[in-house]
Amino acid sequence: MSSRARAGLQVMGIVTADIAITLDGFGAASDQSREHPFGSLDASRLHAWMFEHADDNAAEVAAIVDAGAFVMGRNMFTPGRGEWDPAWRGWWGEDPPYHAPVFVLTHHERDPLPMAGGTTFHFVTDGLASALAQARAAAGERDVAIAGGASTINAYLAAGAIDELRLHVVPYVAGLASGSRMFDGVGPLDLEPVATRPTPYVTHLTYRR
Amino acid sequence: MSSRARAGLQVMGIVTADIAITLDGFGAASDQSREHPFGSLDASRLHAWMFEHADDNAAEVAAIVDAGAFVMGRNMFTPGRGEWDPAWRGWWGEDPPYHAPVFVLTHHERDPLPMAGGTTFHFVTDGLASALAQARAAAGERDVAIAGGASTINAYLAAGAIDELRLHVVPYVAGLASGSRMFDGVGPLDLEPVATRPTPYVTHLTYRR
Repeated sequence: MSSRARAGLQVMGIVTADIAITLDGFGAASDQSREHPFGSLDASRLHAWMFEHADDNAAEVAAIVDAGAFVMGRNMFTPGRGEWDPAWRGWWGEDPPYHAPVFVLTHHERDPLPMAGGTTFHFVTDGLASALAQARAAAGERDVAIAGGASTINAYLAAGAIDELRLHVVPYVAGLASGSRMFDGVGPLDLEPVATRPTPYVTHLTYRR
Repeated sequence: MSSRARAGLQVMGIVTADIAITLDGFGAASDQSREHPFGSLDASRLHAWMFEHADDNAAEVAAIVDAGAFVMGRNMFTPGRGEWDPAWRGWWGEDPPYHAPVFVLTHHERDPLPMAGGTTFHFVTDGLASALAQARAAAGERDVAIAGGASTINAYLAAGAIDELRLHVVPYVAGLASGSRMFDGVGPLDLEPVATRPTPYVTHLTYRR
């Protein structure tokens, strides 16, 4: 039991968001496909710090999935648009790394999709606030994580709903003509820088609202 | 005499660039005027770390003007476009903080403008490479600084001419529809992160090519 719980205070996690972005703020290119979830933005470059240099970034990688529930945009779950293809079960295989309920924002209804390891994808058609409320209820005392992509994080930032934003800035300028880009449509907005950790392959920047 | 000079090696400074930007990468808005050098982007917010919190950022502030010569874009020197108004002598008063030659990129000829304290503005009409070559020659053993704005730094980055890029990221999302924005038109480009220093009002990020 946490000290807050022992003190009888209300115990509730915060809302976090993690995203790996290029120096020019891109989280993905717009030409997404089943083979290329990040489109023409080189995913290996964007995520080398998580996979090739996992030991150097163990704390940050663990924090990304340390939540009691997740919210993600539809484009993070699938390259498809319009009605669902029921055969599509996400990019993560049968045991996704979330191990918790994941609320997927969509305009198209779909039954919940239970996976191995405790992950269940729930498809939410009634908007950002509803998805966050459902995630909060599911998370209990734990944090809720906005899992991405950039446009979903931007929407929650603009709504003032994110307590802690964790940017993982890869030292690469993508130079895309279009794509999913952090902070598009968000400002003006003040944040508070609370932590910075540089590594040779990524710079971790943590902000609070 | 430096150890390099004592060893008989060629002694030449590097090319640096400093710029204060918002979280979404803006160095200035596009509606620049004599009264508002950064247009509708709030300059006090962009530069509070330099003025209101100068003690916390003394090393970074000093480094900005620690060069033997400077290059700047025309828009950093004046809000004017087209032919010169000879009465305009920059935004810095009669004793600008550069104390060295400053090469201003322009399409319109103008005689050199000597100021107090060792600053002379030279107006260069034959392009980026010429301005940089003139600055290198003037700087001697010292560094050449690309003083800004973002579009001038972007042009030199794209040309591979900047050795050390020092971003001073203010924790504020500007949300501008247009403006002078870091990395526009630069990528794809890899950089090497070499230093990071967080403060409550700005995050200093240093990259090398």
